[in-house]
Amino acid sequence: MGTKITRRTLAKSIAAAGASAGLSQLLYAESAQVPFGQTAFSQWKEAYPGVWRATLGTPEQYTPVSSRMIAPKTAAFDKLPQIQSAPLAPISGRRIPRGFMIDLPLRPNEQVYGFGLQFLSFAQRGKKKKCRVNADPRQDTGDSNAPLPFYVTTEGIGVLVDTARYADFYFGDARPKPTRPITSVTVDTSSPNYTHTVPADAEGSITVDVPHVSGVDVYLFAGPAMLDAVRRYNIFSGGGLVPPEWGLGLWYRMIGSASEQDFLHMAHELRERKIPCDVIGLEPGWQTHAYSCTFVWSPQRFPDPQGLIRAATEMNYKVNLWEHAFTHPASPLFPKLEPYSGNYGVWDGLVPDFAGSAGREIFGDYHGKHFVDAGISGFKLDECDNSDYTGGWSFPECSAFPSGIDGEQMHSVFGLRYQMAIWQEYRKRNLPTYNLVRSSGALAAPYPFVLYSDLYDHRQYIRVLVNSGFSGLLWCPEVRQAVSVEDLIRRLQSTVFSPLAHVDGCYMKHPVWKQFNRAKNDAGELLDNWESLEARCREIINWRMQLVPYLTAAFERYAEDGTPPFRALVLDSPGDQRLHTVDDQYMVGDRMMVAPLFAGESGRTIVMPQGEWRDFWTGERVEGGAQFFLSASTDKIPVYVKSGSIVPWADVGLHAGTVETRRLTARVYGDGSLPFTMGRGQEAFRLEWNLGAGSVKGARDRYTVYAWKTMG
Amino acid sequence: MGTKITRRTLAKSIAAAGASAGLSQLLYAESAQVPFGQTAFSQWKEAYPGVWRATLGTPEQYTPVSSRMIAPKTAAFDKLPQIQSAPLAPISGRRIPRGFMIDLPLRPNEQVYGFGLQFLSFAQRGKKKKCRVNADPRQDTGDSNAPLPFYVTTEGIGVLVDTARYADFYFGDARPKPTRPITSVTVDTSSPNYTHTVPADAEGSITVDVPHVSGVDVYLFAGPAMLDAVRRYNIFSGGGLVPPEWGLGLWYRMIGSASEQDFLHMAHELRERKIPCDVIGLEPGWQTHAYSCTFVWSPQRFPDPQGLIRAATEMNYKVNLWEHAFTHPASPLFPKLEPYSGNYGVWDGLVPDFAGSAGREIFGDYHGKHFVDAGISGFKLDECDNSDYTGGWSFPECSAFPSGIDGEQMHSVFGLRYQMAIWQEYRKRNLPTYNLVRSSGALAAPYPFVLYSDLYDHRQYIRVLVNSGFSGLLWCPEVRQAVSVEDLIRRLQSTVFSPLAHVDGCYMKHPVWKQFNRAKNDAGELLDNWESLEARCREIINWRMQLVPYLTAAFERYAEDGTPPFRALVLDSPGDQRLHTVDDQYMVGDRMMVAPLFAGESGRTIVMPQGEWRDFWTGERVEGGAQFFLSASTDKIPVYVKSGSIVPWADVGLHAGTVETRRLTARVYGDGSLPFTMGRGQEAFRLEWNLGAGSVKGARDRYTVYAWKTMG
Repeated sequence: MGTKITRRTLAKSIAAAGASAGLSQLLYAESAQVPFGQTAFSQWKEAYPGVWRATLGTPEQYTPVSSRMIAPKTAAFDKLPQIQSAPLAPISGRRIPRGFMIDLPLRPNEQVYGFGLQFLSFAQRGKKKKCRVNADPRQDTGDSNAPLPFYVTTEGIGVLVDTARYADFYFGDARPKPTRPITSVTVDTSSPNYTHTVPADAEGSITVDVPHVSGVDVYLFAGPAMLDAVRRYNIFSGGGLVPPEWGLGLWYRMIGSASEQDFLHMAHELRERKIPCDVIGLEPGWQTHAYSCTFVWSPQRFPDPQGLIRAATEMNYKVNLWEHAFTHPASPLFPKLEPYSGNYGVWDGLVPDFAGSAGREIFGDYHGKHFVDAGISGFKLDECDNSDYTGGWSFPECSAFPSGIDGEQMHSVFGLRYQMAIWQEYRKRNLPTYNLVRSSGALAAPYPFVLYSDLYDHRQYIRVLVNSGFSGLLWCPEVRQAVSVEDLIRRLQSTVFSPLAHVDGCYMKHPVWKQFNRAKNDAGELLDNWESLEARCREIINWRMQLVPYLTAAFERYAEDGTPPFRALVLDSPGDQRLHTVDDQYMVGDRMMVAPLFAGESGRTIVMPQGEWRDFWTGERVEGGAQFFLSASTDKIPVYVKSGSIVPWADVGLHAGTVETRRLTARVYGDGSLPFTMGRGQEAFRLEWNLGAGSVKGARDRYTVYAWKTMG
Repeated sequence: MGTKITRRTLAKSIAAAGASAGLSQLLYAESAQVPFGQTAFSQWKEAYPGVWRATLGTPEQYTPVSSRMIAPKTAAFDKLPQIQSAPLAPISGRRIPRGFMIDLPLRPNEQVYGFGLQFLSFAQRGKKKKCRVNADPRQDTGDSNAPLPFYVTTEGIGVLVDTARYADFYFGDARPKPTRPITSVTVDTSSPNYTHTVPADAEGSITVDVPHVSGVDVYLFAGPAMLDAVRRYNIFSGGGLVPPEWGLGLWYRMIGSASEQDFLHMAHELRERKIPCDVIGLEPGWQTHAYSCTFVWSPQRFPDPQGLIRAATEMNYKVNLWEHAFTHPASPLFPKLEPYSGNYGVWDGLVPDFAGSAGREIFGDYHGKHFVDAGISGFKLDECDNSDYTGGWSFPECSAFPSGIDGEQMHSVFGLRYQMAIWQEYRKRNLPTYNLVRSSGALAAPYPFVLYSDLYDHRQYIRVLVNSGFSGLLWCPEVRQAVSVEDLIRRLQSTVFSPLAHVDGCYMKHPVWKQFNRAKNDAGELLDNWESLEARCREIINWRMQLVPYLTAAFERYAEDGTPPFRALVLDSPGDQRLHTVDDQYMVGDRMMVAPLFAGESGRTIVMPQGEWRDFWTGERVEGGAQFFLSASTDKIPVYVKSGSIVPWADVGLHAGTVETRRLTARVYGDGSLPFTMGRGQEAFRLEWNLGAGSVKGARDRYTVYAWKTMG
């Protein structure tokens, strides 16, 4: 897979670089200041096992990597295959008045994925994408609340262009000019040729246009497998996270106007109605002023926050608080934060300089003392994703921050640095946490934050979940309202098979299963048959609780070797061209594949990867390598497991810390030849099956297997 | 209105500039290289009567003004009120690593318009807009096929930021950070405050963020009236154009696959069916290869182009040719053009370097010799508006051109410079021309090109027509297909009251009145009752022919003093706040106001400007200053004229050059106290009304008034 760099390939690369630069005097230089219009050229230098860096020109001082706050999880590289040499030939770049551009190769049929949380597309070859933080993408431009300059290809190549600028990526879309005339042309007399597509089997290049810089570092992550390249990127980022067990239970969020009484009422109702729930979240109304925020409990709505947290804790709930970072002049934080904020305001509030340690620490320290110490388990960090065309909803790109960066750079890192301002308070206290956030960026894998958005298209939500796994991100396809019972059911089915199961009642007075229509819900017009709908929803939420051990294992693998717990099918089988465009099915852990259904559709096509599979619910055999239409009549979300799988399926507890969550039924599919493992080495907890008998190897917390169930 | 610059206001401005810059050491400098982070400051220097320039830092070499190809129409400034001093205090700007930013004042309640062809919004205060050429705006970001960095305000201030960069404009949307804590906050116990709007009656500023530059020229166009500011901008641009008379008749465009026979068949059919038509246009199929273009007649479809043009001319038709600029290697143009093209290709074709005279001349010369000399009347210049997210449809911003500019700059001027490459061939030959184009930019007023787009929302089409008049642009709300008879009628009504009346059959085999559904049209399934629909359409097209003299007068005024022939109501009455958001009614000429109807709507609200008005069709009196709901039952498009107006209404000719077009009925509304005038001074042709008797002053071509008709 790796290309050995010889003098010959080097010379060819230099020649190619010169040709694609279009002009030009060629400059052989590494890490030097490149004059305008000239081509620079860099070898790959190994930075970590299987990770190389090329430096073209003089990179900016502030980049995602230069400002990183978590070191690579170096030891974990050992778990991946060793690579002898960089799998790409040396690359070239060129300094131009508007910035710096680089050229990377694109082989025939090589398909490209990643670029963060892309809502509107999946396979990126042939597209132009701008790496711009924007909350409301309506067009497939790259805009997203969590875009990032990392891509991975079916050839097992991962590339991170280390910039906090809004870089444009042309994934085979920018073609060199033709230079030779053609003497004859085939006249098409049937119809004019309005369309023109560059064939995917042509040689191409990925051109990256990084504005405002005079150089850039490029990181190359080797495979050999596509999934290895992603793993290397995640390990380089610091390794994947493992959420606390309670983070994997159900989250329920109260309406913005909720009071202390409303919170306690809901807490009781969920327990009484036997709806499992671990986390209850509050919306802006908990503060004295929001938009912008004071970060002070409203004495009217929440006269006794400490009592509330205590009561919640006694009922085994965690409390999560909504906020955004823009700090109102009435906040106690304001005087200290004012010198460490940007020169523009948002909603008359300060924009904290999260790129500087002072801004992060002042902001974090306040949160630590007032909320973390008080027992708040985590936050929902809203509005950090640059709704800049909404009118006054964010800060300009030309903002200046005391740390020396501008608004454009800040937007690219604002989400992740905001996460650190909060997370560091939990780290200092050695406390687990799990949070929601509206923006993230490069190198996010270790951060205990799950992305969400104000967008709500169910199919897009699944595409985003599928895309998130290419880039070290996690995504929550939350349930807010629904257009029908079916829509509610389908959305709930998706959220329980995701990194964070969230029923977000932020604008619903009553739980969504009592009335899924927002206006009627607020008006108190509950469904006549809400108890039966509640029962259906309860069953789905129960699945979530039963899945917690399996999810835990998947996340442990994420931390161990960077394998994304939720990911596209193509990552596991890049050689299978049928999977190159499958953006509505995904792997969970190492053996489970989910294919969500969407309301209003009579069913869906399901593309099965190679190998033998089983229906998760029935154990029925499903042909691998096939494709079939599944009628949507089932009450279940379509889930498949690899034949041979053992899957732990817990009893249903009302929260994740109950004994039920650790009481497992080991479901055995087919011949049971794929043991289930949590942890590794001496820590391993392993379920094995041998000719009709199950066995447990190793001990793990309070886990017990009380039943073995053969599933066909 | 003008603020006299004294030492005192100067000092205040300097202080204000320092404050808004947020930091910072203040640098008093004009046209000097400004160090990063420091604030520069500039006086206004008068460039033309009522036009001032401020230079901040060191502007780029290539800008819309520096590269202009038409000089200001200097003498026309005399027709506007004299202004003693610049109506704005000196302005400030700051050099930052990502470019240059400037601050301009925004007064309480001052509303902002312009920015070129904005599809998705009208009044711009409170918004952020990027001046980026993009064919497919789906979000109100500023993207458009003809955005431009000029705005005009209700205070009679016009501002052009002279840059070919994708500048961001924050129209009161970027607010300085708060600096003082508030000791108490009003707790809102009713509901959390999710929204936050900066009140329009607050002082504000317009911040402009120009990337990649170290300085910029700003041009200020004084009023005193808002319309005067626009007039000054148009005169500065070179003055408005007057289309040839035939340009104001109906345009009909053939389907892409049409042949010579199809063309002639349609030419005969239109005459036989008595559908007036002046111009017939061809689509890509006339070329041997399109996408990219060879600019060579297809010998299969068009074996005898010269014969075709001769036949068309004999029938009094003009022939218009579709093309785009991307030049296929099989084009005869290719070898000469290749050295004068960008380093990237589009559809395997060259991107001509229209910013350089060599590229324009090689391209233009070929067109002159092969098409202009052959009698082609004009072109439809497609695809020059950067469909860059469509996949391979345009060239990257990081492109390099031999003239020394990059792709970003080229996109900003590509439309207008392409227009000049074509127009100069007609200019050399002293031939009139009138054309369609997909992109334009700053200083476009004199160019005989009308914008169109692939978008098709009728309401957006009208908004764009209304917006075009702020920025020296013309817009064609063409008719392609329709969802219903009503939709067809409403769209046709709009296009005949626009700068260019176009029935675009580019994907319809048969005229749209025979079948408005595209698929059925192509399948030859004509409407049973198409003759009656044709009759209704004929009546509407007839209006266009009757309007030609009135439109000619409106355009002559455009050329004379820059008054846009089609414009928003607010331009004539900026003091009337009711009109600040009216984006679906427009003025035509000095006395006519149009309020189009939209299919599927039961009627519409019509906002009448102050003064007494008359229904154009019936002469009925309509209260000025009022607002009323008009039921959509009428077959007529709602049109009103100022009471007292005399409006020339021609007989219907089958093309604009007929004697009928010059046979006028003078329609007299109310007391007839507003004489109608074409031309000025000794050239004036003037219709007057005095107590029941009409009189004609001056002669004009073959115009005759054969009837005076009092319209109530």
